Amino acid sequence: DDWQLSENASRIRREFTFPDFNTALTFVNHVGHLAEEMGHHPEICFGWGYASVEIWTHKIGGLHENDFVLAARIDRLPEV
Amino acid sequence: DDWQLSENASRIRREFTFPDFNTALTFVNHVGHLAEEMGHHPEICFGWGYASVEIWTHKIGGLHENDFVLAARIDRLPEV
Repeated sequence: DDWQLSENASRIRREFTFPDFNTALTFVNHVGHLAEEMGHHPEICFGWGYASVEIWTHKIGGLHENDFVLAARIDRLPEV
Repeated sequence: DDWQLSENASRIRREFTFPDFNTALTFVNHVGHLAEEMGHHPEICFGWGYASVEIWTHKIGGLHENDFVLAARIDRLPEV
């Protein structure tokens, strides 16, 4: 599992799996705090045992350096 | 904005808007805690200023009383 480019290369997305709901929720909070810290906010979807994160730069409707910085920081979270 | 039935009536879904990312994240945590308390887990998607919650009963691939109980409890959260 790694970051995947969306069809038109305007977003990156990665899926994560977890042993239960609470671990997914904890991960989502860590991503949320990173996002606030960077002032750069992804879309996060999650449920029991899974989460997905989609990142893009709204202003340009595509990908910018900050998107990859956020992705790299998410990859270093302890749950990943 | 209220709960909407999905096309084949197997899920209910509601969209919520918020003034910023952190308020959406706080709402998501409240929904998460309700879900853990009920042992019934929706799918939640959110980003800056918005969240959506989709509820269904995995075991039957459709809707059951508990789905509507969770929806009603989400409707009573302070942010909504």
